[in-house]
Amino acid sequence: MNENAIVKWFSLQSRVSETDFPIGIGDDMAEVRLGQDTTVLITTDMLAEGVHFDLQKSTLEQVGYKAIAVNISDCAAMATVPVAAVVSVALPKEYGESELKKLHTGITLACEKFGCVLIGGDITSFKSKEPFVISASMLSRPGVCKPLRRSGAQIGDCICVTGTLGGSESGKHLEFEPRLQEALKITGMVNVHSMIDISDGLSSDLNRICTSSGVGAIIEAAKIPLSDAAKKKRKPLNAALNDGEDFELLFTLSKDDCEELLNRWRTRTPLTCIGDVNDTGTMQIKMPDDKISILQAGGYDHLS
Amino acid sequence: MNENAIVKWFSLQSRVSETDFPIGIGDDMAEVRLGQDTTVLITTDMLAEGVHFDLQKSTLEQVGYKAIAVNISDCAAMATVPVAAVVSVALPKEYGESELKKLHTGITLACEKFGCVLIGGDITSFKSKEPFVISASMLSRPGVCKPLRRSGAQIGDCICVTGTLGGSESGKHLEFEPRLQEALKITGMVNVHSMIDISDGLSSDLNRICTSSGVGAIIEAAKIPLSDAAKKKRKPLNAALNDGEDFELLFTLSKDDCEELLNRWRTRTPLTCIGDVNDTGTMQIKMPDDKISILQAGGYDHLS
Repeated sequence: MNENAIVKWFSLQSRVSETDFPIGIGDDMAEVRLGQDTTVLITTDMLAEGVHFDLQKSTLEQVGYKAIAVNISDCAAMATVPVAAVVSVALPKEYGESELKKLHTGITLACEKFGCVLIGGDITSFKSKEPFVISASMLSRPGVCKPLRRSGAQIGDCICVTGTLGGSESGKHLEFEPRLQEALKITGMVNVHSMIDISDGLSSDLNRICTSSGVGAIIEAAKIPLSDAAKKKRKPLNAALNDGEDFELLFTLSKDDCEELLNRWRTRTPLTCIGDVNDTGTMQIKMPDDKISILQAGGYDHLS
Repeated sequence: MNENAIVKWFSLQSRVSETDFPIGIGDDMAEVRLGQDTTVLITTDMLAEGVHFDLQKSTLEQVGYKAIAVNISDCAAMATVPVAAVVSVALPKEYGESELKKLHTGITLACEKFGCVLIGGDITSFKSKEPFVISASMLSRPGVCKPLRRSGAQIGDCICVTGTLGGSESGKHLEFEPRLQEALKITGMVNVHSMIDISDGLSSDLNRICTSSGVGAIIEAAKIPLSDAAKKKRKPLNAALNDGEDFELLFTLSKDDCEELLNRWRTRTPLTCIGDVNDTGTMQIKMPDDKISILQAGGYDHLS
C-alpha cells in the first residue's frame, strides 16, 4: 500500500460532519468551523534526519526554517493566511540549549518572514544518539477566496506552475520560499479551481489533483520550467517531473482566467502554463517530438 | 539549562499581541483569537519510542491512544473542549499498512471517547531501523469558563488533585483516562483559579503553578492520594511526588469553593485537597511527623 492509498483509507474511516469540518483528511490542510462565520485551517508536517535533511549538509537554523516553511507551503497551497505554529522536537541525547536556540532562530526567521508566530511546542530528549525529528503544526485562516482544494480541477482548465522545477535536493529544499504571496496574489486576481504545492514531485502532485478531481491531464515536456539545478542533472526532465520538495504551486484555472493572469502577472516569480485538464482519466505527457506517453506518478512516496 | 528555563527563554523571545494570542508559550495550550468572540486553543505533544513507550511492553494501539490522550489531558488542564487532532509519524523502515492501521485504531478510540476527530496528518518513513516517533496536535474550544491558566493561583487557595498518584510507568501511562469530564464538571461547579495536568510529577507541576503564579505552597504528605502502583514501590511518597505521566489534574481554588466542591462531588474519580497556596515563595511539604521540609521539583525533566 502506498502513501496515497493509506491516506485514502484513513479518509474513508473518518466520519466527520461536513458542516463542522468542511475539509477533512486528504488535502493540504483540514478546515474546522468554529462559529457561524469563522473557520480555522490546520496542517502538520514532520521532518526526520536522514529523510528530509542531513545535518552534515545543513545547519539547525536551516532545519528550523524548513520545518515552518513546509507548513507555510501548505497554507499557500490552499491560498490561506498563516496565523500561528506549534513545534515539537525529539532531540538526540547530546543536544542542549545551544542546539535548541539555533533551531529557534530558523523557526522565528520563517515565522517573521511569513507573518505568523510560534505559540507553543514540546521538547523530548532521546536517551541515546537517535535521529533528530521535528514536527510543526500550523494554523491558518481563509485568504481572499474559500480555501482552495485539490479536487476542483475542471475539464478544459489550464495547468500552471510557479517557479522552476527539479533538483531541489542540491540546496533549494532547505531555503525555498513558500509561494504564499504568490498564492494570495493569484487568488486575488482570478478564480483558481484547484491548487496543491509540489512536495513529492510534479507527476505525483498532478496525479493527486487528477485523482481527487476525477479528471485527466496532459502536459507538454517543452513547457515545463526546468530549474538550473535540474539542468545540471543527467535527466533534467525526469528531475522536474519526479524530484520532491520543489514547494512550487501547481494549480488549474479556466483558459480565460489563465490568459488574464499571465498577461497581468508582474511578479518576479515565473508563472507557466504547462498543459490542460481533460477527460481522459489518465495523465499524459507530450514529448518534444510530439509523441504522447502516459505520465506515471513517479515522485517521492513516503511509504515505499 | 533545564526544560522550564528553555521554555521561559522561548516565551521571552516571543513578542505576540495579547489581543490576538491571549495565551502564548508556557501554558498547557496556547490560545488564538480568530474573531470578535471566537478563540481556538492548540497544544502539541510528541511521543518517542524508548522515552514515552517501549514496544516490548505496549501495543501500537496503546501508543496511538496515548498520543491523543496526552493532548486531551492538556485540554482538560485548561478546562477546554477538544475539537480536532492532526497526527504525524516517523516510522521505522519495516512499518507498513498493518502498523499504521493499529495506530489508527488507538487514535480513533481516544478521539471517539473524548468527542474529537482526526482530521489530518503526515507520514514519514525512516530509511533504516530507527525509533518510532509520533506527534499529535489538538485544537480545542473554551469550555464553561475562560481557559484556565497555571498562573492564577492565589494566596490562601486550597491545592487539589484528582485521582491517585505515582507508579504510572507500571501501566497507567498507556491507558489513563485524561480528566476531561472532571475538568468540565469542576469548572461548572466552582471558580477554579489555576490548573495544570500532572505530566512530569506532582512536585514539578506544582512548581510550575507556583512559579507562574508567583506564590509558594505547602502540601501534607499524609494527604497525598497514593496509587496502588505507588504503594507497591519502595518509596511510595517519592513515587507520588516525582513519577511522571500521572495525567491527573492539579488545581487551586478558594477555601470556600473547595469545601463546596468536595461536599457536592459525586463522581467516582477521587478529589483530594492536599495543601495550601501561601506567600512563602517556596514549596514545602509537611511530613507525617509534622516536620516541614523544602519540596524540590524532582519530577521528570525532558532536558536533563
